[in-house]
Amino acid sequence: MSGRTDFGSRRRKVAVLGATGAVGQAFIRRLVSHPWFELTEVAASERSAGHRYRDVARWIGDDEMPSAVASMIVRPCDAERVHADIVFCALDASVAGETEVAFARAGKIVLSNAKNHRMEPDVPLIIAEVNSAHLGVLEAQRRQRGWRGAIVTNGNCATIVAAMALAPIHERFGISSVILTTMQAVSGAGYPGVPSLDILGNVVPYIADEEPKIESELQKFLGVVDGSAIRPADIRVSAHANRVAVEHGHTVCLSIGLASSGDAASVGRALSDWSGDASARQLPSSPERPLVVADGLDRPQPRRDVDTGGGMTVVVGRVRPDPVLDVKLVAMGHNIIRGAAGASVLNAELLVHCGILPDA
Amino acid sequence: MSGRTDFGSRRRKVAVLGATGAVGQAFIRRLVSHPWFELTEVAASERSAGHRYRDVARWIGDDEMPSAVASMIVRPCDAERVHADIVFCALDASVAGETEVAFARAGKIVLSNAKNHRMEPDVPLIIAEVNSAHLGVLEAQRRQRGWRGAIVTNGNCATIVAAMALAPIHERFGISSVILTTMQAVSGAGYPGVPSLDILGNVVPYIADEEPKIESELQKFLGVVDGSAIRPADIRVSAHANRVAVEHGHTVCLSIGLASSGDAASVGRALSDWSGDASARQLPSSPERPLVVADGLDRPQPRRDVDTGGGMTVVVGRVRPDPVLDVKLVAMGHNIIRGAAGASVLNAELLVHCGILPDA
Amino acid sequence: MSGRTDFGSRRRKVAVLGATGAVGQAFIRRLVSHPWFELTEVAASERSAGHRYRDVARWIGDDEMPSAVASMIVRPCDAERVHADIVFCALDASVAGETEVAFARAGKIVLSNAKNHRMEPDVPLIIAEVNSAHLGVLEAQRRQRGWRGAIVTNGNCATIVAAMALAPIHERFGISSVILTTMQAVSGAGYPGVPSLDILGNVVPYIADEEPKIESELQKFLGVVDGSAIRPADIRVSAHANRVAVEHGHTVCLSIGLASSGDAASVGRALSDWSGDASARQLPSSPERPLVVADGLDRPQPRRDVDTGGGMTVVVGRVRPDPVLDVKLVAMGHNIIRGAAGASVLNAELLVHCGILPDA
Amino acid sequence: MSGRTDFGSRRRKVAVLGATGAVGQAFIRRLVSHPWFELTEVAASERSAGHRYRDVARWIGDDEMPSAVASMIVRPCDAERVHADIVFCALDASVAGETEVAFARAGKIVLSNAKNHRMEPDVPLIIAEVNSAHLGVLEAQRRQRGWRGAIVTNGNCATIVAAMALAPIHERFGISSVILTTMQAVSGAGYPGVPSLDILGNVVPYIADEEPKIESELQKFLGVVDGSAIRPADIRVSAHANRVAVEHGHTVCLSIGLASSGDAASVGRALSDWSGDASARQLPSSPERPLVVADGLDRPQPRRDVDTGGGMTVVVGRVRPDPVLDVKLVAMGHNIIRGAAGASVLNAELLVHCGILPDA
Repeated sequence: MSGRTDFGSRRRKVAVLGATGAVGQAFIRRLVSHPWFELTEVAASERSAGHRYRDVARWIGDDEMPSAVASMIVRPCDAERVHADIVFCALDASVAGETEVAFARAGKIVLSNAKNHRMEPDVPLIIAEVNSAHLGVLEAQRRQRGWRGAIVTNGNCATIVAAMALAPIHERFGISSVILTTMQAVSGAGYPGVPSLDILGNVVPYIADEEPKIESELQKFLGVVDGSAIRPADIRVSAHANRVAVEHGHTVCLSIGLASSGDAASVGRALSDWSGDASARQLPSSPERPLVVADGLDRPQPRRDVDTGGGMTVVVGRVRPDPVLDVKLVAMGHNIIRGAAGASVLNAELLVHCGILPDA
Repeated sequence: MSGRTDFGSRRRKVAVLGATGAVGQAFIRRLVSHPWFELTEVAASERSAGHRYRDVARWIGDDEMPSAVASMIVRPCDAERVHADIVFCALDASVAGETEVAFARAGKIVLSNAKNHRMEPDVPLIIAEVNSAHLGVLEAQRRQRGWRGAIVTNGNCATIVAAMALAPIHERFGISSVILTTMQAVSGAGYPGVPSLDILGNVVPYIADEEPKIESELQKFLGVVDGSAIRPADIRVSAHANRVAVEHGHTVCLSIGLASSGDAASVGRALSDWSGDASARQLPSSPERPLVVADGLDRPQPRRDVDTGGGMTVVVGRVRPDPVLDVKLVAMGHNIIRGAAGASVLNAELLVHCGILPDA
Repeated sequence: MSGRTDFGSRRRKVAVLGATGAVGQAFIRRLVSHPWFELTEVAASERSAGHRYRDVARWIGDDEMPSAVASMIVRPCDAERVHADIVFCALDASVAGETEVAFARAGKIVLSNAKNHRMEPDVPLIIAEVNSAHLGVLEAQRRQRGWRGAIVTNGNCATIVAAMALAPIHERFGISSVILTTMQAVSGAGYPGVPSLDILGNVVPYIADEEPKIESELQKFLGVVDGSAIRPADIRVSAHANRVAVEHGHTVCLSIGLASSGDAASVGRALSDWSGDASARQLPSSPERPLVVADGLDRPQPRRDVDTGGGMTVVVGRVRPDPVLDVKLVAMGHNIIRGAAGASVLNAELLVHCGILPDA
Repeated sequence: MSGRTDFGSRRRKVAVLGATGAVGQAFIRRLVSHPWFELTEVAASERSAGHRYRDVARWIGDDEMPSAVASMIVRPCDAERVHADIVFCALDASVAGETEVAFARAGKIVLSNAKNHRMEPDVPLIIAEVNSAHLGVLEAQRRQRGWRGAIVTNGNCATIVAAMALAPIHERFGISSVILTTMQAVSGAGYPGVPSLDILGNVVPYIADEEPKIESELQKFLGVVDGSAIRPADIRVSAHANRVAVEHGHTVCLSIGLASSGDAASVGRALSDWSGDASARQLPSSPERPLVVADGLDRPQPRRDVDTGGGMTVVVGRVRPDPVLDVKLVAMGHNIIRGAAGASVLNAELLVHCGILPDA
């Protein structure tokens, strides 16, 4: 998170739902010293509610549990019992759907990391640098659903990496088709997640539900607002999803068919020139560059490049002609930061910047 | 290697060139108790020549150096100094090219594992079950080059895995285009090969020269004999090659465009029905089935499936529709056995079976 | 398992309790085609009972679920509902204690893999080659507890590897003290077991409850029968237990103080000469040699040596002087086979051989 | 490296010998923006000399080659051709011995990372926080050898981690004996170093020459100055050295015999209280604490704790009674930073602080 100063005088109170899990912890890490947001509440399942956070959460990772959070009493995921108006939802899909609706109905702005509402036409699926214009459907969302609050979602962690590599190309040339293969880190499956017996020295060529998510979310990310709905881009997408023995960082190999004339060199320039939507620049979580084209012939690599831009930058490389479609390349990004918690926090910052969140 | 009995009364003498390296050792493993071949000579670089094999070779792997070979005096890679008429060449590409020509000129049948001559139109690039008919150009090879011997090559280890998965589909439907992504084991780079600092917890999205080899060799494997040359198949191929932290077993994700109408179900049937060229069945190194379609939703996996058919079977799975081309699937095979030494030995058996090698 | 022929005319019926877990499956693998035993029943928790095995068990590993077992109806772990007189218990320690007692009381011979009863003085803790004489307390066990059946246990997987390396030394020289450090494979923790996020590229220097188990079980393995109880050997033992990113095979570094004069050379000879208790030779699960001294300076290694003797042989190496105690060495063995299921099956064979199990 | 300000007005010029290798690069990383030192020259083998650094060095790691160094012309390792008075030597042991002597004779202060001179009685083997008093032999070194310069060495990377954990215990209680087992990261072997085929999913229980180095260097680190020589501590040490599949961070399990009465609790306090020699505090490379006692039952772990104190802090844990000796514990430290380059740079800072290096 960059060190830009706050322009508001007070920080907005925020809560994390599903705060004890791996993604919840990633939210906490990014919110405990955020210049615009003040993490005042953590909520989790009934089993954890009522206890101190430090007594029910097994802190994962190499840092220490932030002391301010450690002593918080965990609340239930009940919209009446959470006071903050902005909630980051890290709940599992099995419960996220209804909980998020309840919070939105109760007037909360919900930044969701779950898949449940992502594909609904009036729910914006946002990467701040890619499609901030999709926030335009929020008004329709509230009107149609009679909500005082709103739901804004981020995408699947692998999709976000791919979408950021494709966005500059789609803007410049249009994309007609994409065939992509992912090699996804184990942290994408949460904790405890992937058993070591399944992945040590192995590749698992299947991740449940992942390929359809990647295929449909990519179309929505690159789509346009059409009245009260988002119309997916007319791009055919085929995904192969694999799990590999990597800690953090999803790598994606992409073959891309262009809608208009372009070659590897011009696509490479489109990628290096891109700096994303103007509204997403200079936000606290914005990296210096959302996309970087790696120099090395053998880059990007997850272990060496995953922390570029504090984990918020997607690194692409090996832009070259594709003998079947038009161009091919590799993209890699941090699945927990750019692909989940960091993306949601950046989306919340975008909402503030765009005036969708009321002044604190 | 299956236990089929020898039909000849005497075993043919064979030699291994480049016998001290990783692939050379794999040849030795498969030849020390071969029913048709008797390993009588090992050859290597000048530095090793004249010494006992056990004093110059660092035996890799979990078995013991075969005692019969341990005490052999290593010969130089000189066609005058090697007596066997059949030589398996595991030399590095930097020296294999000229050495193989010298041996062929001297009347030897060279089974090559190097890339040097693979793409020459009159040199058969053979997978025994896939394109044994390509041996038909050997006569032209000898005539054109004035050789008494011959060179027969096998392919790149990743290409062989892909080619075996594609062959039944090309036979039944014709293939117009293939986009494939490999996740290749470290043993494919030989020994010492990939430094552990480069690959532990990592993916390296580049293997030098690999992608062009895969793209052109695939076309040749699936091509046809046209007079004195092999004419590559008219298939557009795009490859993404990656190195992953797997010991043995290359995994390949393939998206396939068909030349005639076919769906995932019929492609799946073509794969399960396939048993390869009749001439390649019942050879000592032939697996019970060259291709197996895995049951599990998350298979094939290198660590779990790599030894299927003693490492000679390619396992495919996840045959499903492809939203951009026609079908997609995953294939996995043992890069050292099916992808290198086992393939060459099987090719030599095929030569015997086809009467190309004279009686012992 | 070696191919020795059965000397009985009929195979004894056996059951596996806890058949759906990782260790239960290892038992099934070793029992489905056993020459002396016929696996006729599988039992598991109430949740699985009443269902077909294939519908409730997620088969782990690279082989296929044996079809004979796949169609069995899982029984509850109730001594009245299991008919076989010999039961292999792979239940978790949380339920194994009471269940094993109930089965023993009901007349069953229980081969236990759980820790619950291991340290009771009248319960033999057996490695067939090391301390078969300890079976002598079984009569006292039955008498004192009023059981018609009996409980015989094997040890903790790391302890078994260490005990087999120490047994020949204790026999020849006596051991006064041992300091050992384990590097244990992830399969020792069962499935799902160790999360990949915890162990990829990492060492975890702690395994819950492991060190006290190793320290006390080692003393019991090397102890003697004293009337109706086993008296632990008077050896001071200190264990450091670590988890490492290895699939199968526990490696143990041992520093050993001798009770009588001996040096590295004579200890090395004691190890290579040792073939274990005579009663444990020639049993169906006995490896050709229970202990092998590796040649290589850098052996044993789990990935390269774990399958020695079909996983039933412990490999030792690097026997050398210890500047603090007397000698030091490395031992490695297969934690699932020699350290768990294979050890229990071998113990059952020993019971048959010793006439403790009635004729079938 | 902490941000403490320089007390000198000018930075001293320094050179790195063996600058192209893995350790040489680690030196460069720590010197390019050092407050007291200015890296003005890099030297390497004859093969590289005369070329630009960027053309002959393959930069390892996830950062970029510092541009100031990239354009430097590499010098030969010739004392007449290197102008800086302080040289950090990262040369391989095969050439370091003579080169370091030549530089010392020519008046240079040589901070050596090689094993060659470590065990000579008048060559200080220094960990700044542990035995800065050993610098007292430098005068004798110069006098006896007739050098204008001097050689100061750091230790083997595993030894340094162990020595820092033992130093506070030796200071408080005296240590009579130590049995230790290391689990060492692959980066300790340099680059390319350990082949991935040797270490993926494996443990290698042997590192050439490592155990004798650990045993003798530990005694010297904890020894005392006795006239013109360092007298090793009278501690019996036994080491078991293993390589594991970890990127950075050596883990060491230690069993310790005390010379005077002490228990785990008092040893734990000695460890937490320790802050090292006063002269080593507040140096630019000094971490806030040289030693930290980890809280978690399962810590330290290399992947989670290796960067503590910027890689300069050794983390210990699990201090508990040892049933054979007196206490046991685990220690872990960064082998490249605390165990090599960082240690040497800290030693150089100590020389400045102690006035051994003349004012700049």
